[in-house]
Amino acid sequence: MAKERILIVGGDAAGMSAAGQIRKLLPDADIVVYERSGFSSYSACGIPYYVAGLVEPETRLVIRTPDEFLEKQNIRVHTKHEVLSLDLGAGTVKIRNLETGGDFSDGFDKLLLATGASPVVPQLNGARADGIFSLGVLETGIAARKFIDQHRPRHAVVIGGGYIGLEMAEAFACVRGMKVTLIDKAPQVMSTFDPDMAEHIAAAIRGIGTELRLGETLLGFSTEGGRVRSVIIEGGTIPTDMVIMGLGVRPNSQLAEAAGLKLSVRDAIAVDESMATSHPAVWAAGDCASTTHLMTGKPFWVALGTVANKMGRVAGIAMGGGEASLKGVLGTAMSKHCAYEVARTGLSTREAEEAGFVFQSAVIKTKTRAGYYPGAETMHVKLLAEEGTGRLLGGQIVGGQGSAKRVDIIATALAAGMTVHDLVDLDLGYAPPFSMAWDPVQIAGRSLLAAMG
Amino acid sequence: MAKERILIVGGDAAGMSAAGQIRKLLPDADIVVYERSGFSSYSACGIPYYVAGLVEPETRLVIRTPDEFLEKQNIRVHTKHEVLSLDLGAGTVKIRNLETGGDFSDGFDKLLLATGASPVVPQLNGARADGIFSLGVLETGIAARKFIDQHRPRHAVVIGGGYIGLEMAEAFACVRGMKVTLIDKAPQVMSTFDPDMAEHIAAAIRGIGTELRLGETLLGFSTEGGRVRSVIIEGGTIPTDMVIMGLGVRPNSQLAEAAGLKLSVRDAIAVDESMATSHPAVWAAGDCASTTHLMTGKPFWVALGTVANKMGRVAGIAMGGGEASLKGVLGTAMSKHCAYEVARTGLSTREAEEAGFVFQSAVIKTKTRAGYYPGAETMHVKLLAEEGTGRLLGGQIVGGQGSAKRVDIIATALAAGMTVHDLVDLDLGYAPPFSMAWDPVQIAGRSLLAAMG
Repeated sequence: MAKERILIVGGDAAGMSAAGQIRKLLPDADIVVYERSGFSSYSACGIPYYVAGLVEPETRLVIRTPDEFLEKQNIRVHTKHEVLSLDLGAGTVKIRNLETGGDFSDGFDKLLLATGASPVVPQLNGARADGIFSLGVLETGIAARKFIDQHRPRHAVVIGGGYIGLEMAEAFACVRGMKVTLIDKAPQVMSTFDPDMAEHIAAAIRGIGTELRLGETLLGFSTEGGRVRSVIIEGGTIPTDMVIMGLGVRPNSQLAEAAGLKLSVRDAIAVDESMATSHPAVWAAGDCASTTHLMTGKPFWVALGTVANKMGRVAGIAMGGGEASLKGVLGTAMSKHCAYEVARTGLSTREAEEAGFVFQSAVIKTKTRAGYYPGAETMHVKLLAEEGTGRLLGGQIVGGQGSAKRVDIIATALAAGMTVHDLVDLDLGYAPPFSMAWDPVQIAGRSLLAAMG
Repeated sequence: MAKERILIVGGDAAGMSAAGQIRKLLPDADIVVYERSGFSSYSACGIPYYVAGLVEPETRLVIRTPDEFLEKQNIRVHTKHEVLSLDLGAGTVKIRNLETGGDFSDGFDKLLLATGASPVVPQLNGARADGIFSLGVLETGIAARKFIDQHRPRHAVVIGGGYIGLEMAEAFACVRGMKVTLIDKAPQVMSTFDPDMAEHIAAAIRGIGTELRLGETLLGFSTEGGRVRSVIIEGGTIPTDMVIMGLGVRPNSQLAEAAGLKLSVRDAIAVDESMATSHPAVWAAGDCASTTHLMTGKPFWVALGTVANKMGRVAGIAMGGGEASLKGVLGTAMSKHCAYEVARTGLSTREAEEAGFVFQSAVIKTKTRAGYYPGAETMHVKLLAEEGTGRLLGGQIVGGQGSAKRVDIIATALAAGMTVHDLVDLDLGYAPPFSMAWDPVQIAGRSLLAAMG
């Protein structure tokens, strides 16, 4: 019997997690990865910190190089190779070597699509000018960093107040000491947070001197000699030395769609709990694929490294003939803006309403440590729970050092189907440098219990 | 009908938590608290930080004074009043006013015993000398602080390598810059941790210059003019300027025992899930009472502020006629020794063996943040899970900043009865300043899954 041949399209978190699992289960299989960019298995989430100058060189973001994959796991990773099309009937893919420009075909017994997601880039005047960067792949981060090193910009405009936007605004304002203007078309930053919690985040952003312009429509850019000079919004013109666009990402599902694979919510590739697609020889994992929201039971799409790693692991085990499944996720995410931490999990108020839940919520303001302990900072916790059952639906936390990772308590409670009562009864850890005797999430739980009567 | 009269013996975490709940449910009841010390409702866990000089004045440790209790909640707190005996048949208690020396009686309809725990003080030569302190109540902390301010000791001996011992050694070594010798009769520090994890803690203690002497038997003290001059152990004589004893605590259950109430493990007062004792008019809560260990289902005693607060809340609701219960606890505890964090929850290896579990464990070494992110420090995670079912039994974490509070993920998973698989599937939060894409507790989970085959 010939060796099984497994092709993987995309050599980042999901693809390489899968490759590692497959190698463990199928020691003899041919495992070949085609990656469009010049890097394998790097931390995309680390790009803002590389641009900031907190991390260098860029190779520190690379977890394992193609040479290391070959040597340690006998996995062949071809970077700068773009897969152009899939022929699922024939079991072949068409590939372009981006360095030579030559096209060729390769055959597979099993195929994993781990094509990731790409930044949304608006079709606007000047959007391709020098000095404007849409962070997605490491190459763009390297280009942004080179631009900064070369031109020493003093003012940056960041467009989009989501995770990437906040992290880039932090990089410029708090690490590089630049003047920053942060623009969003929404009336709040961080759209996955409730407006009241986003207000605290906005106050923290303004508190470090960043100009925050919400509810602003981006019209275009003015350029000079091919280089960006200002950002044009409905509210006026903002002169700037550089621009970062963080307008969100979309799943790279074009190959899958063209090959006839079923798509799901947000046009992400539809997969089951073991990451199997609608074609028996094809799996999909990571930012290009859909999953399930554990609180609604409905298809859900989120582009996060945590989820990509989990999906990749499950896909790899499944493709290797093992048993694994990922029942779903909670959209747990966190970020830091200078010293301010933000985190969320489960359903926001808007999401809970859209899902048809009848629920109540409570928000509390407390301290990150015992109030008397040096360094205690303000934090806010919001909890949502279903009326009647008391089942927790979601949580949001913003505040000083030690705030964000507490969302994991809520995420674990959500996964377990816990009620607010269960949360209040938890035996969580306490010492004055870390907490009060009731952890802040439990203080929020007690407040919610009181509200629920 | 006469107003219901509720007496509470002990005005700290459990007693005052209960009092507050009773007041909410019974707006008209007489609520009277007798407290032996001079303070109500203070953070006993904060005493080491007060002695260190990180917190001052000592009144910052007091959450609410007797005057505030009277004014805000109409709760009468009599400090410096010691309850001498209970007559449960008659429904009376005998009290001594420690300031006047006068004795009197008071009657109750319902009684709560929240008498706390007291430090174990060995009967050894010189143990009562000036300069030797057994931290238990705030007054001792104040005395220790006064001694330091007056005598400016340069070398302290701390006896007992548990939580109090480590926190006091931190106070002396890292805050006050004193030379510290830490002695324990056991071959390891922190007896609620497994020996391999305690090794890392010991290395951290030694790493900051503290002399650690394990397996040493304390014989006594030599004194000069009534003041301690050295600590005598089997291994020799250690000259010192002051001594802190942290030899553990015992439940103050003498009153209860003398009154004929049923005792439980470690001679703590036996209570049910609503904190009711063996007498229908008497409840008990806090360090003087027993609870249940959630993993073994067996009676368990632990003296921790978190548990005392929870027990007090439940006792108060029950005494007020409401419904509440505390099914049990996990022994979750954490501490910090200078920059080194330690935390544990559930069963240790020894406890799991004693409870008769067949289990496996895994220990991993990883980083507190993404490896490339500045400030990433080493941390170790140990997990125990039952063989066959994969049910988690316990976890221990030691390491740099951000390590300890992660034990809450494990504590929540334990309370939910989760398996190692469930833990690995959790959607925990990630961003490079906080974690890797797989949280360290999940990396430990994956390692344990691999070990379990």
